[in-house]
Amino acid sequence: MEHLGKKTWVIAEGYIPAYGNGPQPQFTSHETACILNTGKTTAEVEIYIFFAGRGPAGPYKVQVKGERTLHLRFNDLSHPEVIPKDTDYSSVIKSNVPIVVQHTRLDSRQAENALLSTIAYSE
Amino acid sequence: MEHLGKKTWVIAEGYIPAYGNGPQPQFTSHETACILNTGKTTAEVEIYIFFAGRGPAGPYKVQVKGERTLHLRFNDLSHPEVIPKDTDYSSVIKSNVPIVVQHTRLDSRQAENALLSTIAYSE
Amino acid sequence: MEHLGKKTWVIAEGYIPAYGNGPQPQFTSHETACILNTGKTTAEVEIYIFFAGRGPAGPYKVQVKGERTLHLRFNDLSHPEVIPKDTDYSSVIKSNVPIVVQHTRLDSRQAENALLSTIAYSE
Amino acid sequence: MEHLGKKTWVIAEGYIPAYGNGPQPQFTSHETACILNTGKTTAEVEIYIFFAGRGPAGPYKVQVKGERTLHLRFNDLSHPEVIPKDTDYSSVIKSNVPIVVQHTRLDSRQAENALLSTIAYSE
Repeated sequence: MEHLGKKTWVIAEGYIPAYGNGPQPQFTSHETACILNTGKTTAEVEIYIFFAGRGPAGPYKVQVKGERTLHLRFNDLSHPEVIPKDTDYSSVIKSNVPIVVQHTRLDSRQAENALLSTIAYSE
Repeated sequence: MEHLGKKTWVIAEGYIPAYGNGPQPQFTSHETACILNTGKTTAEVEIYIFFAGRGPAGPYKVQVKGERTLHLRFNDLSHPEVIPKDTDYSSVIKSNVPIVVQHTRLDSRQAENALLSTIAYSE
Repeated sequence: MEHLGKKTWVIAEGYIPAYGNGPQPQFTSHETACILNTGKTTAEVEIYIFFAGRGPAGPYKVQVKGERTLHLRFNDLSHPEVIPKDTDYSSVIKSNVPIVVQHTRLDSRQAENALLSTIAYSE
Repeated sequence: MEHLGKKTWVIAEGYIPAYGNGPQPQFTSHETACILNTGKTTAEVEIYIFFAGRGPAGPYKVQVKGERTLHLRFNDLSHPEVIPKDTDYSSVIKSNVPIVVQHTRLDSRQAENALLSTIAYSE
């Protein structure tokens, strides 16, 4: 398929809860950027994390192969540094080809889980 | 009414929980694409499903009649193949006339349900 | 302030749960269109409801005064007809001046409430 | 990084629940505007609050430093006046440089929390 989407995406809301309840890993509290690459070419993606009280971290580099989706858990990013839990952050996602990004969180700190999701801002 | 919307929509987030709780079918865990056709002409809609570890599935073909809405459960898509549960996916929805698409999930795996919804990405 | 927004908005997802739990009216299951009119002029708003199995209802007419917000519960619309509960629908909201519309649902059918919200589609 | 985003943002939905449950301050019911400033220059931000039954309040003035994020709780705004709880409102956020705004609510009135989030409307 053709490359749908944009090359720059922004998720202003970011927060990884410090703990969770329920069977692992499905009910681990997590923050996800769902990245879809509808085209044939591999997407070279760079992620930058912005904080309230210090300068940005990154770039974190990930690849999304052609005609594949990647549901990336921010919890799993470790290089150049782990994203601290229970801390406000935002993220910018840049790609060399158009992609589509959607933001989702599962918060399982309490007995029953809570969900949020929104399309990211693109330009 | 005139045809409002766009012809191409993308939902980067997709996940059908493997199980649920509560009275059926309202509380079955499900993933929905709400498709509105505001115009007089029937919309011929094709859906493509993208995965993390294999090539895309589809097209799934559905019709939305003029001036009607279709709340399509991905759980119900069966031809050319069923969408596996507990598996990350994304979807692209193409129509021959402008439509509007919104994405909603009811997650009823725990005792209390959780909801998410967002407008899809369009171009 | 100047009139911010657009004159046509679409909410593809619509569903009023048939029952609820908790103190009334805050925890009544409801579906809301939050309409903001940032300008000085009163907004004359018309709402059309689309269904899966019959033609559209409306227009429902509401006014939003200048520099005021209206959190309109679809449950409260009664003229020209009540919107049935436990039924899929979509809505189109048209205004004579630019407005901004956001869609929110409180689902209180179970012991714990669930929330969803998204900006509507505009053009 | 360059300044990503827009200078005017609108959140049509606004409501601070009157009470909450769970450990403070993480589980205090709250309404948040997550504001990201990806550029080098400090963003001078003005927030206006619109109500159903009276004229707007504000401007509330906040700064977001260069390459920083601010997860602003509407609960914390006090000058020129506190935003009343259990009251419908909307907000307009204006900045002298482009920013990105996302809207999130944690509702902890019941035993289990509920979450909503959406990208704001921008122009």
